[in-house]
Amino acid sequence: MSDPRPIGVFDSGVGGLTVVRRLREEFPRESFLFLGDTARLPYGTKSPETVERYSLANVGFLLARDVKFLVVACNTASAVALPAIEAISPVPVVGVIEPGAEAAVATGRRRIGVIGTEATIASGAYARAIARRAPGREVIARACPLFVPLAEEGWTDNAVARETAEIYLSPLRGKIDALVLGCTHYPLLKDTIAATVPGVLLVDSADAVCEAVRPLLSPARRNEDESEYHVCVTDAAERFRAVAERFLGRPIDRLEHVEITGNV
Amino acid sequence: MSDPRPIGVFDSGVGGLTVVRRLREEFPRESFLFLGDTARLPYGTKSPETVERYSLANVGFLLARDVKFLVVACNTASAVALPAIEAISPVPVVGVIEPGAEAAVATGRRRIGVIGTEATIASGAYARAIARRAPGREVIARACPLFVPLAEEGWTDNAVARETAEIYLSPLRGKIDALVLGCTHYPLLKDTIAATVPGVLLVDSADAVCEAVRPLLSPARRNEDESEYHVCVTDAAERFRAVAERFLGRPIDRLEHVEITGNV
Repeated sequence: MSDPRPIGVFDSGVGGLTVVRRLREEFPRESFLFLGDTARLPYGTKSPETVERYSLANVGFLLARDVKFLVVACNTASAVALPAIEAISPVPVVGVIEPGAEAAVATGRRRIGVIGTEATIASGAYARAIARRAPGREVIARACPLFVPLAEEGWTDNAVARETAEIYLSPLRGKIDALVLGCTHYPLLKDTIAATVPGVLLVDSADAVCEAVRPLLSPARRNEDESEYHVCVTDAAERFRAVAERFLGRPIDRLEHVEITGNV
Repeated sequence: MSDPRPIGVFDSGVGGLTVVRRLREEFPRESFLFLGDTARLPYGTKSPETVERYSLANVGFLLARDVKFLVVACNTASAVALPAIEAISPVPVVGVIEPGAEAAVATGRRRIGVIGTEATIASGAYARAIARRAPGREVIARACPLFVPLAEEGWTDNAVARETAEIYLSPLRGKIDALVLGCTHYPLLKDTIAATVPGVLLVDSADAVCEAVRPLLSPARRNEDESEYHVCVTDAAERFRAVAERFLGRPIDRLEHVEITGNV
């Protein structure tokens, strides 16, 4: 018997919809409840303590809506808050760091670059996860804070995006063979990033998450039509709809505005 | 008799320290209590409802610390939350929009440009405040969302900053005679902005606030040495220290981390 409850996914904002998009492609008969914490984004520039506090509030919201397991689509939250989330969650929790590290190692490439937010890179989570699997690999990590606002502005392939990528990534050129896109926003800049580090294999952790989710699913019996797809945000600014549709690659029927109260 | 209580100043982040810096230069014998809501920044991309909720929480914090009046250094909060703040505050409240509009009109220039966050520009607050004072002036407003992360990254005068300014401001070239920098972050980009719209007079609302504050002050009697200068932040990520020092133009001895709880 398949479990009809939705898969709960959260991100600091709507960037995590890139993960939902991939999961939907792979598991079209599953239902999804997505929460974007748009009232408190971004997480990537904030302290681990604050990110953990917000993450636990998001998890509380999703658990109250009876999700069958949790996907932490946010790299920053996965990097700094996963142990705290696992400690309170009665359902399984999938982050994006371990699957991303797994996919990076699976490329077989020797020198692995990792880019992400300041908080993700400062945590060292990707480097540790890669070292655990393949101690011999070299890892070079670099924070690229401006990639997030560029993706949100829709400037993914103009002179500003190219020059920004050049500043962040030229120090990595010739030093890496694969590059982990360690932030849900970065896939939107994929072409610009690829052009800046030619010959480097890009690893999208959104792809890797599907493999981590698969063992948690029993074969779905219902039709695709019955699967539900629900997007909640903590701030309903109209801009988030445009950004969300850019990430999801299609229009969104309804953004539900929810409030998460308490010590957040 | 002078009132020894501090002037309470808040901003979404530490950008408002540009306002504190100007106030300190002008009123060196006053004490200041600054609150940067770094856990929830930015405000400029969020909805008026969320910005109002956060602003009222900040005001509650400052009032509980017995400030003699409030300066809302954040343009976005001033644009969308000032009536709500005035409704709950027992002490006077000074925002940055009215002083900025006053200063823009006082330039005597006919065609006035305004740049700010998406929320500030969407509110139309500057255009209304200018029209009330000088109905004949033309106002052209433009949101420049990437200026905030550029200023925080310290990229104020490189190729990325110049190209970004070109994209945002070239449509205003030849159409404006003065330009209001309607965000506390923008003064850091002053040189780049000035070079993009040559011949245009820049108006910094941080300067204008001093004139609005002056009537609220009685002559200070104490020595400059006795004045206190206290910076609080809701998120203590180390990056905010660097950003704060960039805005303040000098080292900060102590950033106090405070938590604002409740429905925020």
